[in-house]
Amino acid sequence: MRITLIGSGNVATHLGAALKNAGHQMIQVFSRSMQNAALLAYHIKAEPVDNLKQIHANTDLFIISVNDDSIDNIAAHLAVHSKPIVHTSGATALRVLLKYTDQAGVFYPLQTFSKTKEVNFRDVPLCIEGAYEDLTNDLIALAQTISNKVNTINSDQRKILHLAAVFACNFPNYLYYAAQQLLAAHQLNFDLIKPLITETAIKIQQQLPAHVQTGPAVRNDQKTMEAHLQLLDAHGGLQEIYKLLSQAIIKMAQGEHRVE
Amino acid sequence: MRITLIGSGNVATHLGAALKNAGHQMIQVFSRSMQNAALLAYHIKAEPVDNLKQIHANTDLFIISVNDDSIDNIAAHLAVHSKPIVHTSGATALRVLLKYTDQAGVFYPLQTFSKTKEVNFRDVPLCIEGAYEDLTNDLIALAQTISNKVNTINSDQRKILHLAAVFACNFPNYLYYAAQQLLAAHQLNFDLIKPLITETAIKIQQQLPAHVQTGPAVRNDQKTMEAHLQLLDAHGGLQEIYKLLSQAIIKMAQGEHRVE
Repeated sequence: MRITLIGSGNVATHLGAALKNAGHQMIQVFSRSMQNAALLAYHIKAEPVDNLKQIHANTDLFIISVNDDSIDNIAAHLAVHSKPIVHTSGATALRVLLKYTDQAGVFYPLQTFSKTKEVNFRDVPLCIEGAYEDLTNDLIALAQTISNKVNTINSDQRKILHLAAVFACNFPNYLYYAAQQLLAAHQLNFDLIKPLITETAIKIQQQLPAHVQTGPAVRNDQKTMEAHLQLLDAHGGLQEIYKLLSQAIIKMAQGEHRVE
Repeated sequence: MRITLIGSGNVATHLGAALKNAGHQMIQVFSRSMQNAALLAYHIKAEPVDNLKQIHANTDLFIISVNDDSIDNIAAHLAVHSKPIVHTSGATALRVLLKYTDQAGVFYPLQTFSKTKEVNFRDVPLCIEGAYEDLTNDLIALAQTISNKVNTINSDQRKILHLAAVFACNFPNYLYYAAQQLLAAHQLNFDLIKPLITETAIKIQQQLPAHVQTGPAVRNDQKTMEAHLQLLDAHGGLQEIYKLLSQAIIKMAQGEHRVE
């Protein structure tokens, strides 16, 4: 397939590389920064451009992988070429593209990407939506060339997935940061706690999180929680987080906190 | 070494098995429930007992691996045997044992254990403290027979480690639960989000969490955060958590939230 990539951020970089490796022909890479466009374009053997007017129609698919706020404007520019346009955003509905083209779809990789960290794309769940059945099927076929985990997901479901991803990824990462900062403030090495972080994530691959919850809150161990809150006296922000999450775990253990 | 194990919970079970596998002789296993004592004792070829008075002194080390609140009382009973006594608690100071014996130490495995999930003990950081140098060295030698990650950690440092573990393990696990419940409430499979959870934990093995933070909060993407809060209208508890953690991430990104 001939593919034109709009964007040069984390998702565009990993997705572009995966598509290139799967044998697709990467036509152009657009970025507002020519340096970024050139860097990614070099890796995936495409033409770098930094002006939307330079993008041409000799392609089979436009993939928009930019900040959510820029998707609308870019789609408006691309629609003139009458080729399918997809975006890669978890938080953006299909209808944002449908304003400009009938050939609209979504190609959302449910993973966290950093440019400095390799990802095995075959394990990345791809959430596909198409404006009509033929397009959906084409996008599924494309997705299967790079991932073993392809799912058809509509815009409402994708919103929930994106929200759940914030709880499952962004918030835990912040809590790793909090742990790392606490350790650093007491001259303790973050490495000490890394096996615990891995094990916690691996555990829930086979078991429900509620069944493997550990720690003072799930035991309602008030003495330990009070000692912890005292240690956090100097760290007001973390103290508030400790209280709120411990209360939530206590409620979970009491079975009062089912999300319905 | 001849070892007597007090307790039959998650830590006692995994630690007992690791010590047995390393060739140590497990003498007795105590639990208030004879059924639990017998189950663990069977696996590690020890004698099960459910009465503290049945514990005898023909051993080289007592390991107390019970609820924090019971450590004091059990240590009082064991001190009569004049053998080294260690506990495995992250939150309990050495001085709780020193009230009853000079031969006091700590043998704290910094990991989350569930009975139904195997753990490679060689990767489990063991935090060792001894009341005097010879005992510390003996405990380090013992620890090295089961783990490659043995550290000398004093009681003040251990408190911080235990607190950091709550942030790095217990709280993330609760957030996995929140994600799973959100998905279930919308008929979405928790499996979809599992690769994301693993990747988030693996990422920080090589990089600082602050450097790999992703999501709407670190971008200060108000539009997406507002949409998420709206989706959480029906889930008051999660809405509060979402607000607090998002604010914390925004502060982290602005560099205002260093823990000192």
